[in-house]
Amino acid sequence: MDNFTLFNPTTIDFGTGKEQQIGQHLAAHSVKKVLLTYGSERIKRDGLFATVAQSLAAQGISFVEFGGIVSNPVISTVREAILVARTHQVDAVLAVGGGSVLDSSKAIAAGVRYEGDVWDLFIGKAAITAALPIFSILTLAATGSEMNNGAVVTNELTKEKFAIGSPHTFPKVSIVNPALMQTVSRDYLVYSAADIIAHSIEGYFTAKLQPRFQSRLVEAIIKTVIETTETLLADPADYEARAQFAWASTQALNGLIYSGTAGFSYPNHMIEHSLSALFNVPHGAGLSVVMPAWMKWYHSHNPQQFQRFAREIFGLESAEQGITALENWFDKIGTPTRLSQLGITETELPATIDNVLGNAKWFGIADIYTRDVVTRILKNAL
Amino acid sequence: MDNFTLFNPTTIDFGTGKEQQIGQHLAAHSVKKVLLTYGSERIKRDGLFATVAQSLAAQGISFVEFGGIVSNPVISTVREAILVARTHQVDAVLAVGGGSVLDSSKAIAAGVRYEGDVWDLFIGKAAITAALPIFSILTLAATGSEMNNGAVVTNELTKEKFAIGSPHTFPKVSIVNPALMQTVSRDYLVYSAADIIAHSIEGYFTAKLQPRFQSRLVEAIIKTVIETTETLLADPADYEARAQFAWASTQALNGLIYSGTAGFSYPNHMIEHSLSALFNVPHGAGLSVVMPAWMKWYHSHNPQQFQRFAREIFGLESAEQGITALENWFDKIGTPTRLSQLGITETELPATIDNVLGNAKWFGIADIYTRDVVTRILKNAL
Repeated sequence: MDNFTLFNPTTIDFGTGKEQQIGQHLAAHSVKKVLLTYGSERIKRDGLFATVAQSLAAQGISFVEFGGIVSNPVISTVREAILVARTHQVDAVLAVGGGSVLDSSKAIAAGVRYEGDVWDLFIGKAAITAALPIFSILTLAATGSEMNNGAVVTNELTKEKFAIGSPHTFPKVSIVNPALMQTVSRDYLVYSAADIIAHSIEGYFTAKLQPRFQSRLVEAIIKTVIETTETLLADPADYEARAQFAWASTQALNGLIYSGTAGFSYPNHMIEHSLSALFNVPHGAGLSVVMPAWMKWYHSHNPQQFQRFAREIFGLESAEQGITALENWFDKIGTPTRLSQLGITETELPATIDNVLGNAKWFGIADIYTRDVVTRILKNAL
Repeated sequence: MDNFTLFNPTTIDFGTGKEQQIGQHLAAHSVKKVLLTYGSERIKRDGLFATVAQSLAAQGISFVEFGGIVSNPVISTVREAILVARTHQVDAVLAVGGGSVLDSSKAIAAGVRYEGDVWDLFIGKAAITAALPIFSILTLAATGSEMNNGAVVTNELTKEKFAIGSPHTFPKVSIVNPALMQTVSRDYLVYSAADIIAHSIEGYFTAKLQPRFQSRLVEAIIKTVIETTETLLADPADYEARAQFAWASTQALNGLIYSGTAGFSYPNHMIEHSLSALFNVPHGAGLSVVMPAWMKWYHSHNPQQFQRFAREIFGLESAEQGITALENWFDKIGTPTRLSQLGITETELPATIDNVLGNAKWFGIADIYTRDVVTRILKNAL
């Protein structure tokens, strides 16, 4: 195991009805006025917004709304929200939504406390030295953002999808109520499954040092995601499956499975970020296309671990069988495995490859992911 | 899954040489003068004490020593240490040792900030409302105390082994350097393995609601403990095995595997606490005696989970085979499985049973663990 430091100060308040206590959580952190961020107006139709408003009012906390955050969130929206937060002098941000709303809210919270343009924080021009306290009510389990300090946002002008992370951007409290996720569409459920599996396998396959204990934790997550996704496709109202799916999602990207591993990278995310930056495809849908394509190219770099994956996850023998089984499973649940299913054709490959090569520098793996390699991976996905 | 709140603010600084940074960690928490608690003088002979002293001095932090904390730590020692801490007006406690030193240090830290007698906090006469900040350098991986808020201490007069726990008694920072554990004796290694397995199975078998994801996490821990214990018995200097053993130990009792489970209890610990309170046996040795005896009585209450255990851990079919396999494994590694190996004979059963029945009230399971049941379990261990 490699040396590591693990610190995760986020309180997870998990279960039915927990959103009713959001006001108390904010009050415990002395919040008086909060920026309430969200995506679509769905939370107003389904009653969640009213529940939150009531919980805040009961604690004498006022709020300013900022809705309209989209999937693959964009930096222009973050900039707008920062202006609103400053104008109204809020002292915290409360994200009500999925990963896009949470990630945007982290960027907003950090941006409010930074004098320059918030994109500076993404491109390394400035460091995050402070942030407003962040709270969240999760409505889609996929990104793990509820229990980590990372945020990924796209700059629409430069077509860059970049990330920030800082000790200041951990949520103070995240509410995870699986019942709120019952209305997630079939498509987004399967995209989410692909996203969680992607978080789990990046380190599992790429780490130069991958302790077996950490592999076992990863396998626990993947098996749970596969099992619960199938249950939820048959019965979206199955609370137990929804809950285990959500909790596995949180564990996939809260630091646990990466602790003690070394020399890992995020090539699937690197490639997918180009797909969503250029073509605005759902992140999870992009990942389910990239993963099998990447695995077909990469498996010879780490044959033992790919055999382990085949055996532990699918009860199969060879690396190739394991990859095929995952691809078939993606097909079965209905998340895309081909670029064409995302509406991306061969003529768009050159621009896509250029964008991936731009990402490769930021992901620190430009030496491995050359034009030739990226071309081969993307061609596997045609 | 049951509703739960998970909050664990402890920073784990894991790996080789990390103890050299303890001074910086204390300085980051504005500590000026610390009570340095430890067990035997071994840490002076092996250089750890000098390393710590140097790291503290480099940050201008003074310390007061309090050594001599024994296994199955006793409340009289905690009381002494509280006096020392008050006399020298320390502003933190730094535990250098294993679970006994850590647990004592938590009790000291809470006791200093409580006006009455510290045992009041154990018997529910008073609540913990504050504690000195706690830091630790772990030298034995077993109890998980480095990343939780619990502490178990024995009252030698009343022969009660009781626990405290409070949001105030999480360590701020725990250093876990597996290399410091290389000199752990063969006996304490196998007792520790039994302790970790006990932490893992209590909820796994007794919970009325045990999500499959949580079972998988438990199995990852148990498989890792079995594998790494065998490696370490063959080669105590195997760093990788020592590290995974230690990290699995931390995960077994930091809240993760119990989150979402419901209706669980700690019957093995309840019974073992009587063995160590009455006969001062090592906690892990007591547990390896109690577990198979308890499992033989209990398995019919949860046959499916015992079958799962047999299959997932040992690749066997029946509940009984799984129990036998665990007992055989304990025999193989050389941790006791019979009361006689602890020097406890049938004539001592009545007093032991009385003590267990006393514990049962505190463990909240007096309705299940009647005199008849406890007798049957202990007779299984003769």
